[in-house]
Amino acid sequence: MFSKILIANRGEIAVRIIRACHEMGISAVAVYSEADKNALHVSLADESYCIGGPQVGDSYLNMAAILTVAVATGAQAIHPGYGLLSENAKFVSLCEKCNIAFIGPTSQMISQMGDKDMARKTMRNAGVPVTPGCDIITDIKEAAAVAEKIGYPVLIKAKAGGGGRGIRLVSSPDAFENAFYSASSEAQSAFGDGACYMEKYLNPVKHIEMQILCDQYGNVVCLGERECSVQRKNQKLIEESPSPAITQDTRQRMIQVAAKAAKTVGYVGAGTIEFLYDQSGNFYFMEMNTRLQVEHPVTEMVTGIDLVQWQIRVAAGIELSFSQEDIQLKGHAIECRVNAEDPAHGFRPSCGQIQFLHIPGGPGVRFETAVYPGYFVPPFYDSMIGKLVVHGDTRDQAIRKMKTALGELVIEGISHNAELQMELMGDPRFVDGTYTTGLMAQREKERKA
Amino acid sequence: MFSKILIANRGEIAVRIIRACHEMGISAVAVYSEADKNALHVSLADESYCIGGPQVGDSYLNMAAILTVAVATGAQAIHPGYGLLSENAKFVSLCEKCNIAFIGPTSQMISQMGDKDMARKTMRNAGVPVTPGCDIITDIKEAAAVAEKIGYPVLIKAKAGGGGRGIRLVSSPDAFENAFYSASSEAQSAFGDGACYMEKYLNPVKHIEMQILCDQYGNVVCLGERECSVQRKNQKLIEESPSPAITQDTRQRMIQVAAKAAKTVGYVGAGTIEFLYDQSGNFYFMEMNTRLQVEHPVTEMVTGIDLVQWQIRVAAGIELSFSQEDIQLKGHAIECRVNAEDPAHGFRPSCGQIQFLHIPGGPGVRFETAVYPGYFVPPFYDSMIGKLVVHGDTRDQAIRKMKTALGELVIEGISHNAELQMELMGDPRFVDGTYTTGLMAQREKERKA
Repeated sequence: MFSKILIANRGEIAVRIIRACHEMGISAVAVYSEADKNALHVSLADESYCIGGPQVGDSYLNMAAILTVAVATGAQAIHPGYGLLSENAKFVSLCEKCNIAFIGPTSQMISQMGDKDMARKTMRNAGVPVTPGCDIITDIKEAAAVAEKIGYPVLIKAKAGGGGRGIRLVSSPDAFENAFYSASSEAQSAFGDGACYMEKYLNPVKHIEMQILCDQYGNVVCLGERECSVQRKNQKLIEESPSPAITQDTRQRMIQVAAKAAKTVGYVGAGTIEFLYDQSGNFYFMEMNTRLQVEHPVTEMVTGIDLVQWQIRVAAGIELSFSQEDIQLKGHAIECRVNAEDPAHGFRPSCGQIQFLHIPGGPGVRFETAVYPGYFVPPFYDSMIGKLVVHGDTRDQAIRKMKTALGELVIEGISHNAELQMELMGDPRFVDGTYTTGLMAQREKERKA
Repeated sequence: MFSKILIANRGEIAVRIIRACHEMGISAVAVYSEADKNALHVSLADESYCIGGPQVGDSYLNMAAILTVAVATGAQAIHPGYGLLSENAKFVSLCEKCNIAFIGPTSQMISQMGDKDMARKTMRNAGVPVTPGCDIITDIKEAAAVAEKIGYPVLIKAKAGGGGRGIRLVSSPDAFENAFYSASSEAQSAFGDGACYMEKYLNPVKHIEMQILCDQYGNVVCLGERECSVQRKNQKLIEESPSPAITQDTRQRMIQVAAKAAKTVGYVGAGTIEFLYDQSGNFYFMEMNTRLQVEHPVTEMVTGIDLVQWQIRVAAGIELSFSQEDIQLKGHAIECRVNAEDPAHGFRPSCGQIQFLHIPGGPGVRFETAVYPGYFVPPFYDSMIGKLVVHGDTRDQAIRKMKTALGELVIEGISHNAELQMELMGDPRFVDGTYTTGLMAQREKERKA
């Protein structure tokens, strides 16, 4: 087992990883930007080093600075958290060169899944249902013919895509050619690669993702699903496990498909296979995230498995101590992301000093955060300042527990979205479990009507 | 189900009960003393009423004031928490007369278990092993003969005892008579009842208690044991479940004995049967607490059962939805009581304003408290200001989780015992699980040596 791990991240996830290290008797090294010298992860770590300016490009994405700290402090492994360098194949290669274990899959696996077209092909070959569509478009006429066949609307998507760039929704044949050129040129300027592929646009759909965990010896376990359909501009707001829409039968099929896919590609570590789930009960591969997800705690609460500790164990070469048959989803867990933003004013980010903080508690309530009373929320980073996660015996009980906890949460000094989350807990589409990824747009339309 | 419950308590347990009410959709009425107007339970409740001065006799023990609020607000039930009126048979009778459900057993059951000699007889008749000894001493010569037979040292204990008063340890026959008169006269002046009984003094022993939960229809479930041997002056400091010293075989026997005892006496509600456990693996009934225990969260964490919610359901006439076979102790839970006191200066109580508060978090960590930044800890009440509870897959993991959490806990502005708790987590007798109720005295002796 490692004796020292560097955490190449900040905020709540850095705190989460430091706690896991300490529980495992591992020393934790923090890195931080000039804006983060008073951050919680800096004071909780055993050693902390400033690696650059407030902008992430100068610090948290500064590969040379991070690796220098790792080598200088004798850290044997780096945990990247999520976002930032967590899916950066180049960084993983550099770790490999420095003989430092990257807590995640290999650079080759990250590349393979980061290339969305290749991921689609890989999954299709592994027997995973993928959205109807076509691979890289080389002949526009041919692609348009496929679009006619699978039916409009379709999506044209950049192979190297991310952050919603290089995507065009096409509603009719006459718009196809223009949309393709527009997507391709945007992708070319954003990613230096204009290649695009095409998928049928499925709507309404739910976002269902399967958590997998694989060791270095070919053991693969799927820890069930999370539903993450409450999204605003492709940012998840609420996640739950299990999904209220999935039957036990469908769950078993999805678990089998996800586990088989992970096994086929030889995946190692924690990963998430994201699916679109339509109203006929079909599911289609969307993408694979080769890292820890923000919403991993809901899976931890229903399975009782500490995902971060297992990521570390797997990276250290330890075999999984449980198999698929041992996994039972017990009760129901919900996570609400608490963002420092103002829902009443177009969700604009809010920064400033936390004047007062009261964190909810009680059985089955977990608040993952890096803020504390007096902390100054800086303007440079993601607006998520906490994750309120609850676990109840049933979904109904979990919703009531979340309402109780949200009602107790007090964060003064900045704007945040806890009231919106409270409203969402009462939205009839959330309560009955029929909500789709269109929920936030529907609510916005209703608000304006 | 009740729609409104009055909570006749304060501090963390009032907060705990209010949360349970809210999760069950029940309105919570708080009562508070003049010293508690800024208390957390007051702001979390749906209605709050001041019932008297800072001294508990004027407020939290003021039965008339509490019942007046209950009747005036239309509360259908009263939850007494622990301490205060929770084992007061007279208060329970008054509730019965006012047609308000008392969330706990009947006044008759409370009387029966509050009389320590009668409880001893009741349990013996129910087949529970009791410490060798004799019932009420009427003839000193006869009692001294029994003492010779069972072997010195023996304890002479007041029938109406409590708080350590009316107890004498007798080491040899020549001290017997004096000890009896001294105990009896102390009991007479403290409780108005000089009756005493005698028990063999067992040492070294562990304190092991069994949690039971019974509905109104004769269903009895035992939720396993808690070990509470880390005590200072009969005050528990650390509790854990399961006990590291109990074999699966002994556990099963104790579960059977406890369940049978509860069934025999017709117990209803949550209750705890406390045992002394000697080094030969024998266990002896000590007393029964007819209320929620401070340390109930460790049982909740290993069983997944919300004891407070079940207390409320049982009082409302709902049947238990699980039986003994459904109960599995999963993983290991430890609780450390965080007291506002100064271990370096004879554990003298500390009061004052909380200047800064950082509560530990992460998976399996729960901090039950009623303090918040800026809160003034008043001098009138129990010094316990929080309970840090952790749950891990194994005892070893739970200890490491507790160390991590204690290392993170920051409470500024008052003295507290978190550092002592950290030391105890590293005490070899705690780590190997061999500690007995003598641990704190042994440590004190070692410190002075």
